[in-house]
Amino acid sequence: MGLAELDPQQLDTLVAETTGAYRELLERKLSLDLTRGKPSAAQLDLADELLALPGAGRTRSAGGVDVRNYGGQQGLPEIREIFGELLGIGVDQLIAQDNSSLSLMHDSVVWALLHGVPGGGRPWSGQPVKFLCPVPGYDRHFSICAHLGIEMVPVETGPHGPDPDEVARLVAADDTIKGIWVVPTYANPSGAVYDEAVTRALVSMPAAPDFRIFWDNAYALHHLTDTEHPPLDVLGLAAEAGHPDRVLVFASTSKISYAGSGVSFLGASPANLDWFLGHAAKRSIGPDKVNHLRHALYFGDAEGVRRVMRRHRELLEPKFALVSAVLERRLGDLGIASWTTPEGGYFVSLDVLDGTASRVVELAGAAGIALTPAGASYPYGRDPRDRNIRIAPSFPPEPELAAAMEGLTTCVVLAALEQQGAVQR
Amino acid sequence: MGLAELDPQQLDTLVAETTGAYRELLERKLSLDLTRGKPSAAQLDLADELLALPGAGRTRSAGGVDVRNYGGQQGLPEIREIFGELLGIGVDQLIAQDNSSLSLMHDSVVWALLHGVPGGGRPWSGQPVKFLCPVPGYDRHFSICAHLGIEMVPVETGPHGPDPDEVARLVAADDTIKGIWVVPTYANPSGAVYDEAVTRALVSMPAAPDFRIFWDNAYALHHLTDTEHPPLDVLGLAAEAGHPDRVLVFASTSKISYAGSGVSFLGASPANLDWFLGHAAKRSIGPDKVNHLRHALYFGDAEGVRRVMRRHRELLEPKFALVSAVLERRLGDLGIASWTTPEGGYFVSLDVLDGTASRVVELAGAAGIALTPAGASYPYGRDPRDRNIRIAPSFPPEPELAAAMEGLTTCVVLAALEQQGAVQR
Repeated sequence: MGLAELDPQQLDTLVAETTGAYRELLERKLSLDLTRGKPSAAQLDLADELLALPGAGRTRSAGGVDVRNYGGQQGLPEIREIFGELLGIGVDQLIAQDNSSLSLMHDSVVWALLHGVPGGGRPWSGQPVKFLCPVPGYDRHFSICAHLGIEMVPVETGPHGPDPDEVARLVAADDTIKGIWVVPTYANPSGAVYDEAVTRALVSMPAAPDFRIFWDNAYALHHLTDTEHPPLDVLGLAAEAGHPDRVLVFASTSKISYAGSGVSFLGASPANLDWFLGHAAKRSIGPDKVNHLRHALYFGDAEGVRRVMRRHRELLEPKFALVSAVLERRLGDLGIASWTTPEGGYFVSLDVLDGTASRVVELAGAAGIALTPAGASYPYGRDPRDRNIRIAPSFPPEPELAAAMEGLTTCVVLAALEQQGAVQR
Repeated sequence: MGLAELDPQQLDTLVAETTGAYRELLERKLSLDLTRGKPSAAQLDLADELLALPGAGRTRSAGGVDVRNYGGQQGLPEIREIFGELLGIGVDQLIAQDNSSLSLMHDSVVWALLHGVPGGGRPWSGQPVKFLCPVPGYDRHFSICAHLGIEMVPVETGPHGPDPDEVARLVAADDTIKGIWVVPTYANPSGAVYDEAVTRALVSMPAAPDFRIFWDNAYALHHLTDTEHPPLDVLGLAAEAGHPDRVLVFASTSKISYAGSGVSFLGASPANLDWFLGHAAKRSIGPDKVNHLRHALYFGDAEGVRRVMRRHRELLEPKFALVSAVLERRLGDLGIASWTTPEGGYFVSLDVLDGTASRVVELAGAAGIALTPAGASYPYGRDPRDRNIRIAPSFPPEPELAAAMEGLTTCVVLAALEQQGAVQR
């Protein structure tokens, strides 16, 4: 029965239970963290082999290159081959770089601002620049825009991405829109999986030649169910649509091997790769090829990566099930919240009663449960309905996660009761 | 006896010898490379231990941080402590980053252009920006400027750096000069060692608050003789002079451990570090801390680094001696060339007869001896006297180095004879 339909006595009972539970929560003086999509120690342990690789005497790539020395801006072919197969990108269109795909996105935006992009004429800077931001989305994408003075235009996203007609309409109406952030598979935090229709529409719509889709495939291989959504050949679709340079594909092993010490990847058209590497060559004499070799030896081949990902799933699936179970048990009947049940990725997106997300985060924080600030999934941190909360279940051990979820749901109910006037703040 | 003083018969003999030697050189069809300051395979072998580090079960820093996960933007304290001691920089003023100090320089310039620097008001971009470039200097410094539209102003450098009065005069006369590139110890390629007087003058002179010294201490520990020039406390001297934010110190292990897989460092004032880290946090969720731990375990302590550097010296010293010996034997008497005998670093700077450097490089290239393009050590690749050639002896094995140096000196003499009209081109 929904909160709105409770009779006065039922409401009194719920108020008593909830305020009591919150008092107990405060007394427990918890210190729990649901903020970031960090792998757990057990997940990191899966890659223990990396700690002693490449191993004594292993200093050369399959092609005979001494990986310890300078050079090789494109990255080691063997690691590009493995991830090219997994991402559905030809090895010639995929480069391997250092430990952070966020860096590749940041640098791509910076270089577009300072130098422009292939086919695009003048630099983006010195003119207004806007990016479309499917929401809820990834806060670090939005931080890059905010930091570089790029105006963000939010677009609502559904389970298969944003409405492509709406995107096309916005882009056609405003040629200062130069980019869109997309997490196409198991999006952060919505879990959305862009389907082929949306993808085809995005790569086909009319847009300025310097419009770019930042296709951040951070969770391409991070399945949580047997429904393993394969990565779409977005570069092929873009080329087929006559816009080969529209898409930059990003990926990394941050949530496959080590979060801070993995390998990042950029997939793009030949013109975009030449552009990226031309700028990158001014910045460095090449990426960490020893780490490329280390990873290539660890994985062996694409199947080796899939094997690792199945073990990640074994560790993550129970945590996501726990989150769903607590949300369902505590909030399922009250009609004050909805949430996603993602088929992959790292997040559950929880929508609470409009206008209460900030208060939920505040109540939880006071009880020692750290949540990502309300609004973080929106440009400028502004969730217009103040309802979205991102839950990151991966890092805490299950008992801590359970305690945090119980506490969080108490706060969700309490904030709703406050808003309805049933509890005084 | 100098070339100019030879009698006709002596000149004929020299012409016959030199043209004959060059013909033989062409017939040998060599393929030798003196272009880049790359460590040799034997030098890289010194760090073999790194190939299996940090080793099974080693996942935490001394402070208990799981190095495999996200975070720790400043880098691991233990590696900062070791290099802080070696560079004479307090650990609080030194951060450790990824594998390339060139990247830290590039990003510092980019962020200054886009955002300005502490105390400096508006961004550098949108106004003319110039950098002073002590010459001959490092081509990759100049590439950053050229790529980012920064005008370069060359300043002649002596054995202790440029004339500080000249630098002060230029900076005072032109407030669009926002920076100077300095390789203070065993400069690339001149071998210059900035002394305390020059250093004090540079940090003390009047300059705009957003003027920055890019103090690239790439060879701080790379001694070739028992005269080990210690790094000056340039940050302390700058603070003492009332300009704590003027200097950014860069260093790396690229020529201590691995050229592509080492650790880079930035030393700076608290305001500059906050500035750098604030921008870096938009670009990445932290550096490769596993590599920091790997290096900390390998070196152990500062003395561990010094021990490694003594072994590098053992490998490099004979190569530099060989270069000096060939230059002396083949060119010592002719009065057509002068060269440096560096006490450290990676280069010998050879000045040939004015107007012949390009021709020497061309002749050598035709004979299979690759040299850095003439002029590379000057902004825009323009050596006004066309005389400077950078010799990088580290990479080739000694027999190859010897062959390359014999060939190079033949080309130096031949180009001089051509210029004097004694040989037809």
